[in-house]
Amino acid sequence: MLEKEEITKWFQSLQDSICLQLQKADGQGTFHEDKWERVGGGGGRTRVMTSGRIIEKGGVNFSAVDGELAENISKALGLGHSTFYATGVSIVLHPENPMVPIIHMNVRYFETTSKDGSSTWWFGGGIDLTPHYVDENDARYFHKQLKKVCDQHDPGYYQEFKKWADDYFYIKHRNETRGIGGIFFDRMNEKRGKSKEELFAFVQSVGESFAPIYTHFMAKNSLMKYGENELKWQRLRRGRYVEFNLVWDQGTKFGLDTDGRTESILMSLPPQANWEYEYKPIPNSEEAKTLGLLSKGKDWI
Amino acid sequence: MLEKEEITKWFQSLQDSICLQLQKADGQGTFHEDKWERVGGGGGRTRVMTSGRIIEKGGVNFSAVDGELAENISKALGLGHSTFYATGVSIVLHPENPMVPIIHMNVRYFETTSKDGSSTWWFGGGIDLTPHYVDENDARYFHKQLKKVCDQHDPGYYQEFKKWADDYFYIKHRNETRGIGGIFFDRMNEKRGKSKEELFAFVQSVGESFAPIYTHFMAKNSLMKYGENELKWQRLRRGRYVEFNLVWDQGTKFGLDTDGRTESILMSLPPQANWEYEYKPIPNSEEAKTLGLLSKGKDWI
Repeated sequence: MLEKEEITKWFQSLQDSICLQLQKADGQGTFHEDKWERVGGGGGRTRVMTSGRIIEKGGVNFSAVDGELAENISKALGLGHSTFYATGVSIVLHPENPMVPIIHMNVRYFETTSKDGSSTWWFGGGIDLTPHYVDENDARYFHKQLKKVCDQHDPGYYQEFKKWADDYFYIKHRNETRGIGGIFFDRMNEKRGKSKEELFAFVQSVGESFAPIYTHFMAKNSLMKYGENELKWQRLRRGRYVEFNLVWDQGTKFGLDTDGRTESILMSLPPQANWEYEYKPIPNSEEAKTLGLLSKGKDWI
Repeated sequence: MLEKEEITKWFQSLQDSICLQLQKADGQGTFHEDKWERVGGGGGRTRVMTSGRIIEKGGVNFSAVDGELAENISKALGLGHSTFYATGVSIVLHPENPMVPIIHMNVRYFETTSKDGSSTWWFGGGIDLTPHYVDENDARYFHKQLKKVCDQHDPGYYQEFKKWADDYFYIKHRNETRGIGGIFFDRMNEKRGKSKEELFAFVQSVGESFAPIYTHFMAKNSLMKYGENELKWQRLRRGRYVEFNLVWDQGTKFGLDTDGRTESILMSLPPQANWEYEYKPIPNSEEAKTLGLLSKGKDWI
């Protein structure tokens, strides 16, 4: 039987592997590590890169925390008094060049044990891409890679999880998707008709796909030219990223509500974000074109 | 009897008066007005100044909206199916010079009418100051002005509403107050042992105190010298302002949840905000001194 220790160890090794691949692709930046412990139980390793050649600010976090489940969360999950164990890897990367997209990935495992001894577990995760400028060929490439990963495990996964990402990575008060979406999944357990081992294998494939996908864009887009106009737009789009993360993201909310380590949770925020009242891009500009593509239900492939 | 029309009209005139006083004190910036209508009922006048001599980005909003109260909000207020009417003025000003504080004020009136004909009403509001650098003389001045306004109406108001502001303008995940606080009050109606006229008179005094208080700081602090170091700190503190407004502010949450006009609600966000992982000011620096003062329960007077 697959135990939490094995899953935890694998997430740690995923963090190591991704950091190495990103450092190699960046060629200049290195990750600074902070090990931390949580008062209620467990801890993590936060790794942050700043001022790389390509990555301006990014974090690759591993954590494994445990303790008593707060009453409101137990209730929301339909459980009585319970303890929990949660482990995972969480990544957000903000590139310097506006032609390189922002990326996010999270893979996680969650376990609860009730006082009566009954227990539940599930996997969750997702990857989504937020280009400052949407290039439809890049979008197709990104979604094709994710579909390939999904198809190896279940022919229905991509379609289901792509829709889930559209609904999740959505900035409701702007009526915009955060970017071009990707995949999102949660509460994946034996009720899906798969064994724990099969579901873990899927999560491993998702985790392993991250570095090849993003280093592809780092290599391809980081030498593209840009000027003040593109930088200005990047900062406004980063403002939208901040809005999504602080207003709508459930992971951020959960972290801040449960007294998580603030600096690790908010490593997702960009180095700089701007807001302009009623900013409207010039009609038919590249910026207007991107805005026009930020809607749900697009078939990018 | 004081009716909502009279209150509404007064809030409109307050917006006019404050805009004129701020323009005069700025000497360069002017307010751009957007009139808007709400699908569910009512509308507003959003006035925004950008690139003033002193005010880099600021908004002075008036709104008067009405409609059906959403079921979850009716429930939270302990009411059955009801209609509501809400009007008020809401202000946030971000100055260019880091030595000038950010300020916020809100004064509002709320009325509900249940299907059975019963109705409730209340006033609410607050002013709070967020200096990038806390100057204790400025803080004393600010709180003395607010105490003077409060004392004209009730000897207990200042102490009660000062504590309320400490608790409200608090960034829980940072364990910091947003700034040096001020006053905050809500649900003020006949249950406070005052007439509607008396409570409105208090709200009017609060509203009228805003421009004299802030133009004092504009005149006094806007010629103070600053350099790259102060600008960097200003941008980081603006980041904290964004965190408060998007994560904790009930007014922002209410607005975004009830499909308010996003650009008017988010006029409170700064022109630029920065985030640095694990930024710690140099010990004994002015920045460190300010951080050390951002805690609840300080008697500034």
